[in-house]
Amino acid sequence: MLTLYSFGPGANSLKPLLALYEKGLPFEGRRLNPAEFEHHEDWFKAINPRGQVPALDHDGTIITESTVICEYLEDAFPDAPALRPADPVLRAEMRVWTKWVDEYFCWCVSTIGWERMISQMARAIGDEEFEAKVARIPVPEQQKKWRDARNGFPKEVLDEEMRKIGVSVRRLEERLKDHDWLVGDQYTLADICNFAIANGMQKGFAELVNPTDTPGLVAWIDRINARPAAQRMFAEVPRESLKPREAA
Amino acid sequence: MLTLYSFGPGANSLKPLLALYEKGLPFEGRRLNPAEFEHHEDWFKAINPRGQVPALDHDGTIITESTVICEYLEDAFPDAPALRPADPVLRAEMRVWTKWVDEYFCWCVSTIGWERMISQMARAIGDEEFEAKVARIPVPEQQKKWRDARNGFPKEVLDEEMRKIGVSVRRLEERLKDHDWLVGDQYTLADICNFAIANGMQKGFAELVNPTDTPGLVAWIDRINARPAAQRMFAEVPRESLKPREAA
Repeated sequence: MLTLYSFGPGANSLKPLLALYEKGLPFEGRRLNPAEFEHHEDWFKAINPRGQVPALDHDGTIITESTVICEYLEDAFPDAPALRPADPVLRAEMRVWTKWVDEYFCWCVSTIGWERMISQMARAIGDEEFEAKVARIPVPEQQKKWRDARNGFPKEVLDEEMRKIGVSVRRLEERLKDHDWLVGDQYTLADICNFAIANGMQKGFAELVNPTDTPGLVAWIDRINARPAAQRMFAEVPRESLKPREAA
Repeated sequence: MLTLYSFGPGANSLKPLLALYEKGLPFEGRRLNPAEFEHHEDWFKAINPRGQVPALDHDGTIITESTVICEYLEDAFPDAPALRPADPVLRAEMRVWTKWVDEYFCWCVSTIGWERMISQMARAIGDEEFEAKVARIPVPEQQKKWRDARNGFPKEVLDEEMRKIGVSVRRLEERLKDHDWLVGDQYTLADICNFAIANGMQKGFAELVNPTDTPGLVAWIDRINARPAAQRMFAEVPRESLKPREAA
């Protein structure tokens, strides 16, 4: 049996959610509420000591790290529809893309997202409660990110992240302007992992991602959203409101 | 035919070098001289536009990114001795370790290494020549790293990197204090990729990595160095001098 601990279908949580639906693997979804800091509660840190979603429970064994979970589903369910090319060269190309998401693309988009949305959540909490919540975060870098979001990220950090988002968007467009998919002619984890970050940029970063400047990227985002698995997933797994339970 | 473009057997270059020797795959080694900035020359940027080693040429197809190259060798040469567990859960554990090297462990050790060694190399070059060399670096983050090395990294950066090195060393020791290998009971890419960064820390970071404080880590480093493949590799692939050709 598969249980996926995740937030709603965005960012890193979206990767295994979409992969599970594409592969047609039944699973129990256990959604955590980021506005409640549920992922830093002791019960969840007993599952993932780093206090991070997504995490997959497969018959009692926990697999962490969104990209690792996606590759795990390929290894553990070889009879389900493949999201990884059989050819070793294409598989390496896929991994260069998924690695790039994890080391570059996801971070710059995340910082701007935190500045725009998480900062308000962090500022709505009183000093004492905020410090108590931060103290429960097991990863020092994440503690710092929460403090930065509350204080506002320094302007030079935001400028640099926006530069990187521009680089990222151009890199994606360069490939997608004349290809349906990022690797070969197959829909793979390279697409899923990049889509997890890129989906929504047509709205949040419309000055960069739009039909005029990045027609290939926009068409690819639409192409993935139109897939039956994506449609089912977004219908069944609602986005979170980023509000605490009592306020929701 | 396999051709590996690399520096000497340290850091990211060490990963595929050791994997190739362990797998018994014959290859042509093409060593670049970092002190000559050979990896930023046009002939090499035609091979890897990012100007980074290692890069593998397999019958004319280029594979980049050290960890991706290692997984590629597993996929492309399934009959050679395996460095990746067959079990999907162990394979996922292996990937959590190799990902951690690439996203955390390698960076903190690298910064201190650059501060200690590359900085001298960068300062030995005149202003004009230095700027000309930096202008040829295709990755902006690498340009910044060269400038930081020449100017000296800010103290708060060095302090933070030393903190992360401490975290890294404790994480490795926590596993290795009572295990021979990082994943299961098999020598895998998790060991090779971590060893690529950890080997030499007994000397360069002796206050952290020593038989008293980290007996498991030290024994593991010795265990890998004692392997026939490692012995052959270090005998056949000399470390670089970090000196330009005319001064070597």
